[in-house]
Amino acid sequence: MSEQLHDSEQGTDPQGDHKAERHKKAMQKQKAKVDASIAAASTERGVAVLLTGNGKGKSSSAFGMVLRALGYGQKVGVVQFIKGAQLSGEELYLKNQCPQVELHQMGTGFTWNTQDRSADIAAAEATWQHASRMLADPGYDLVVLDELTYMLGYQYLDEARVLQAIAQRPSEQSVIVTGRGGGTALQELMDTVSEVKDLKHAFKAGIKARQGVDY
Amino acid sequence: MSEQLHDSEQGTDPQGDHKAERHKKAMQKQKAKVDASIAAASTERGVAVLLTGNGKGKSSSAFGMVLRALGYGQKVGVVQFIKGAQLSGEELYLKNQCPQVELHQMGTGFTWNTQDRSADIAAAEATWQHASRMLADPGYDLVVLDELTYMLGYQYLDEARVLQAIAQRPSEQSVIVTGRGGGTALQELMDTVSEVKDLKHAFKAGIKARQGVDY
Repeated sequence: MSEQLHDSEQGTDPQGDHKAERHKKAMQKQKAKVDASIAAASTERGVAVLLTGNGKGKSSSAFGMVLRALGYGQKVGVVQFIKGAQLSGEELYLKNQCPQVELHQMGTGFTWNTQDRSADIAAAEATWQHASRMLADPGYDLVVLDELTYMLGYQYLDEARVLQAIAQRPSEQSVIVTGRGGGTALQELMDTVSEVKDLKHAFKAGIKARQGVDY
Repeated sequence: MSEQLHDSEQGTDPQGDHKAERHKKAMQKQKAKVDASIAAASTERGVAVLLTGNGKGKSSSAFGMVLRALGYGQKVGVVQFIKGAQLSGEELYLKNQCPQVELHQMGTGFTWNTQDRSADIAAAEATWQHASRMLADPGYDLVVLDELTYMLGYQYLDEARVLQAIAQRPSEQSVIVTGRGGGTALQELMDTVSEVKDLKHAFKAGIKARQGVDY
C-alpha cells in the first residue's frame, strides 16, 4: 500500500513487556485505520499527480514512477520541457536501456541560457505537440510531463489548453507533472499534489551536484 | 544542473516587445545566479539525501535516483525496511530487468500487520546487516535505505549505530534515506533534506492506489 499511511511513534518505556503490548495496540489501531482507508477508496482510474515545491526530488520521483510502471510492462511516455545541454543519468538510462519508453525533450537548454522568448515559445509549442498527442492516446498508461509548470509560469504555453488536455485524457491513463509553481488551477485539477520543500541542500553548503543523484 | 535552481515568473505585460526584453533581463539575472552557485560549489564527494514528510513521492524519488545512477553504470544497493506482501512495480523492475542492483527487503510485511515487536526488531536487525555492509563498501556508488526512518522511530534499530554507519561511509558513496520523521540528528547529518508535504491525495478522495504510480 502507499507511503502516506505510515505513522511513526517514539517509544520511551524501557520495560519490554509494556512496550511490546503498547506496540501491539498501536499497530492494531494503525492497521484498522489503513484497512478502513483501503475499503473507502473505491474508484479505480488513472491518477494525476503534481510534484511541486522548491526541494530536490520532484523529477526523480516522476522517474521512480516510470520505473514502477515499467515493472508492470506499462506503456510510458516522457516529455521534458526544460533540459540542460548534457543528458542526465535517467535520460541515458531510458535511451539506452528502455527503448520502449517514448522520450521527448525540448532540447533548447535552460530558458535562462537562451534568453530568447520567442524561440523558447516555439520550442515549448513543438514539445507540447508530443504531450498533447500522448494525452489523447489511451495506449499510454503513464505520461510524465517533466518541468511543465515552468512553461505555464513563463506563459510559453496556454494554461487553459494544457489543463483541458490533462482533464480530458483517457480515464485509465495516469499523468505526472513536475516543477515549481504551476498555479492554483493546475493544483485543483490534479488528484494528488505533493510539495517538495527544501529543508537543506548540499549545493548550498558548497557540495557539487553529484552524478547519479542530482543529474 | 539541478532542479532547485528554477524560478518561475508570471508575466502580465501584453506587449510582446516589452515582454521579450523583460524576459531577457530576468533570464540573464537567473543565469548569473545559477552560474555563481555552480562556481561556489567546489566540494566533490558523495551526498547524503533524506526524503521525508507525509506526502507521496519519497520512495519513488529514491528509485528515480537509482535509475539516474544506472544511467552512468554505477553500482547500486537498495535495502527496504518496510515491505508489503506483494512486490511493487519498482521491485519487479529491478528484480527482472536490473540483476546488477543488489536489493534486500525486510520481508515481514507492514509492521502493523505483524503486531509483534520482537519479531520486527529481529527482522530489522537482519536487514540492517545488509545496509551496514554496503555502507562500509566503497564498491557501491549509491545505497538506498528505503523507509529506514521507521526503524528509528519505532526504536527497532539503534540510532547512534545507524548514524555512525552513514557518517563513516566511503567519501565517494552517496546514500538516500526515505520515510517520515527520522529525527533531528539524522536531519543534521544529511547533506540534503527534502520534506515531501501532502497538499492533496487521490486516496483521500476515494481513488484507489494506482498500479505503476502508487505501487
